[in-house]
Amino acid sequence: METKQTLIKNGTLITAKDGSIKTVKNVSVLIENDKISEISDEISEAGVDKIIDGEGKIIMPSLINTHTHISMSLFRGLADDLKLNEWLKDHIWPMESKLDGEISYFGALLSNIEMIKSGTTTFNDMYFFMEDVTNATIESGIRGCLSSGMIDFGDEKKRKNEIKDALKLINYCKNKDRLKAFLGPHSPITVSEELLIETRKIADKYNTKIHIHVSETKKEVDDILDAKNMRPFQYLEDIGFLNDDVIAAHCVWLSDREIDIIKKHNVKVSHNPASNMKLASGISPVAKLLDKKVCLSVGTDGAASNNNLDMFEEIKIASLLQKVNTLNPKVLNAEEAFKSITINGAKTLGLENEIGSIEVGKKADIILVDTIIPNLTPNTNSLISHLIYSANGSNVDTTICNGEILMENKKLKVLNEQNIIEKVNDITQKLKN
Amino acid sequence: METKQTLIKNGTLITAKDGSIKTVKNVSVLIENDKISEISDEISEAGVDKIIDGEGKIIMPSLINTHTHISMSLFRGLADDLKLNEWLKDHIWPMESKLDGEISYFGALLSNIEMIKSGTTTFNDMYFFMEDVTNATIESGIRGCLSSGMIDFGDEKKRKNEIKDALKLINYCKNKDRLKAFLGPHSPITVSEELLIETRKIADKYNTKIHIHVSETKKEVDDILDAKNMRPFQYLEDIGFLNDDVIAAHCVWLSDREIDIIKKHNVKVSHNPASNMKLASGISPVAKLLDKKVCLSVGTDGAASNNNLDMFEEIKIASLLQKVNTLNPKVLNAEEAFKSITINGAKTLGLENEIGSIEVGKKADIILVDTIIPNLTPNTNSLISHLIYSANGSNVDTTICNGEILMENKKLKVLNEQNIIEKVNDITQKLKN
Repeated sequence: METKQTLIKNGTLITAKDGSIKTVKNVSVLIENDKISEISDEISEAGVDKIIDGEGKIIMPSLINTHTHISMSLFRGLADDLKLNEWLKDHIWPMESKLDGEISYFGALLSNIEMIKSGTTTFNDMYFFMEDVTNATIESGIRGCLSSGMIDFGDEKKRKNEIKDALKLINYCKNKDRLKAFLGPHSPITVSEELLIETRKIADKYNTKIHIHVSETKKEVDDILDAKNMRPFQYLEDIGFLNDDVIAAHCVWLSDREIDIIKKHNVKVSHNPASNMKLASGISPVAKLLDKKVCLSVGTDGAASNNNLDMFEEIKIASLLQKVNTLNPKVLNAEEAFKSITINGAKTLGLENEIGSIEVGKKADIILVDTIIPNLTPNTNSLISHLIYSANGSNVDTTICNGEILMENKKLKVLNEQNIIEKVNDITQKLKN
Repeated sequence: METKQTLIKNGTLITAKDGSIKTVKNVSVLIENDKISEISDEISEAGVDKIIDGEGKIIMPSLINTHTHISMSLFRGLADDLKLNEWLKDHIWPMESKLDGEISYFGALLSNIEMIKSGTTTFNDMYFFMEDVTNATIESGIRGCLSSGMIDFGDEKKRKNEIKDALKLINYCKNKDRLKAFLGPHSPITVSEELLIETRKIADKYNTKIHIHVSETKKEVDDILDAKNMRPFQYLEDIGFLNDDVIAAHCVWLSDREIDIIKKHNVKVSHNPASNMKLASGISPVAKLLDKKVCLSVGTDGAASNNNLDMFEEIKIASLLQKVNTLNPKVLNAEEAFKSITINGAKTLGLENEIGSIEVGKKADIILVDTIIPNLTPNTNSLISHLIYSANGSNVDTTICNGEILMENKKLKVLNEQNIIEKVNDITQKLKN
């Protein structure tokens, strides 16, 4: 294979490095095929195929969204200002029953575009029709960790079918670049103990991760307490489900003992503040999780309950919410926040040797963010602060994944945005009829 | 004067109308000079000077920011993750002591650009060097309600000077289009009783409004309780300060009795959630204020504690925060949220007959928001929901104030953005030395 070289010239590099965040001015980054091959203040342009001007721009790792349901963007704005149960039963589930592979594929494409445009190039998804979501993600050029949602409600036949689907997805994603199949038991309340135990066995056998919702609402915790006489993480520990390959989304209602259990098993927590706030589910004790040095990353959840996939917005909300909830403005500070949407996201997904920071030998998953814009001015103050507390996804200028430029100067280079938006509008109109 | 006609053709109109929010498709809006002269599904193009294509766009009132300090954008990212007192004493006040009129003017220009680009065309400001802020605002083409911050700490000489400055500003803004001078006693804790009483007299005499911070932090409330044996709003009522012309920012720490006092005097509340969260000040009881039908609007506060002036982001945060704080997802729903950043902002500033909704005879303060973008898709679901829960300021395509197009197709038509950003970077570099 011929080597393709892309050079990002003279930007301001911001990346996690040795546990802290470094800002270095006038840095160039050389990409060879899918990887970062050199980082220096002086890289020769000789033989370079493509030069991207980094002047006035931040060069940073692209963002990692560790919990979402991308096809649910179809349901953005379908129903709002409702309690979780009412929202699900009266609005979301009736629509989901009408989904098929093609519809899910277009929902996934819509989200892939939204992610590329707002600087996210890796997402962790759980939903239905996941082979179609896989196909959409292949076309989009970004990375996906994909799991088929399993909800057996104790039904053995369902369970067997869902496990079959999960194994099929593992097989489908095998040897596909940028894609990984995970296992997606929906939650300890919607999934039987048998299915949880079976999931653990498959995860061990196939060396894959488990993506699960835990303790999103207080009701869930109460229901498990009723059924098992234990809180959710105690129950999951008790049945031998927990390990460092478990990615637990939401984690809103946690006891101190459960936080210790999370830490003990090195469970990864995906914090989803906007969705938890919008559905009035509650506030995750993130400050306590950080105190215990739990690996904390951030996810948007689906756009139906957020209502977007903008990780810049999400991390601002995350940080501000923790500050006001603890009445301590130092909690989830700008550096911790930056890590949670980059390197901690990578650790959560087991991709920390490939992505999440800008280092020689890692995959070139990089975004450029404008700084010569009002909301990132003045550039004499902290750029990390600007990224966390002032930027939004629309400030991303260029998005690169796996060495491929997916957006440049805010222009998408993959997928047909207008056609996909039109198609989604047609589909959702038909779904309503 | 010759009549200049601008026609916005075939957009989707969203505006407050008779207390609720209406969405009407395929509407055209005719602007004659500074005013809206016709709203219809069929307006002739004959004699029109300028046509703006509204196809695929939302036509809505431009946004109203009812509490900010625009020159403070100079301090964006200067210091973060700190308690209010530490932040003020160690970082903001030392910098403020170096300000002069020219510096404040450029800070104001920077914010004016940020507001125009994110769809805000009216702001309520309180700060220093307000004649310079006035001049910047005249150049920018937007509306400002401006008050000189008065902080006498009981010092009679200071008080007299500050009152003189306030009267000078009233005179300076007289007969200036788009500008109003208000009175800005900083807060009941930083301002003497004498100054509060004097402010009330001047407000009555000149028929102007009063812009004041009240109960931003618990400490403030405790200090007033210590000094006056009353909570802040009881104290303000007791000295005859309260009336329907008072705009109280923050209002985080309110007793139920104080909420009754606010309602009784029809005091206007400017809610500033991002700043209150970032500084860990607390959560305003907005749900209770809405229950009592208090006029609630929204402000960003200064960019030093937010850290931007994006009213779309602010209203999303406002709504989500109330939902999670009350564990009730119905609070501050999308329609109430929309009103709080449009018509309620206008009522707060006494401009409800001129701006805040799109109606014939009102001033043409209008923005167009893209809908053919991923985060506002699908267009078959609620566009009001999309605006409140998914849009950000960068989705604004066109900004019109007083009939003048200030931004079109995301291109600024006033001010020199690049020069102002460079100048601000130079200034803040010098301030640091």
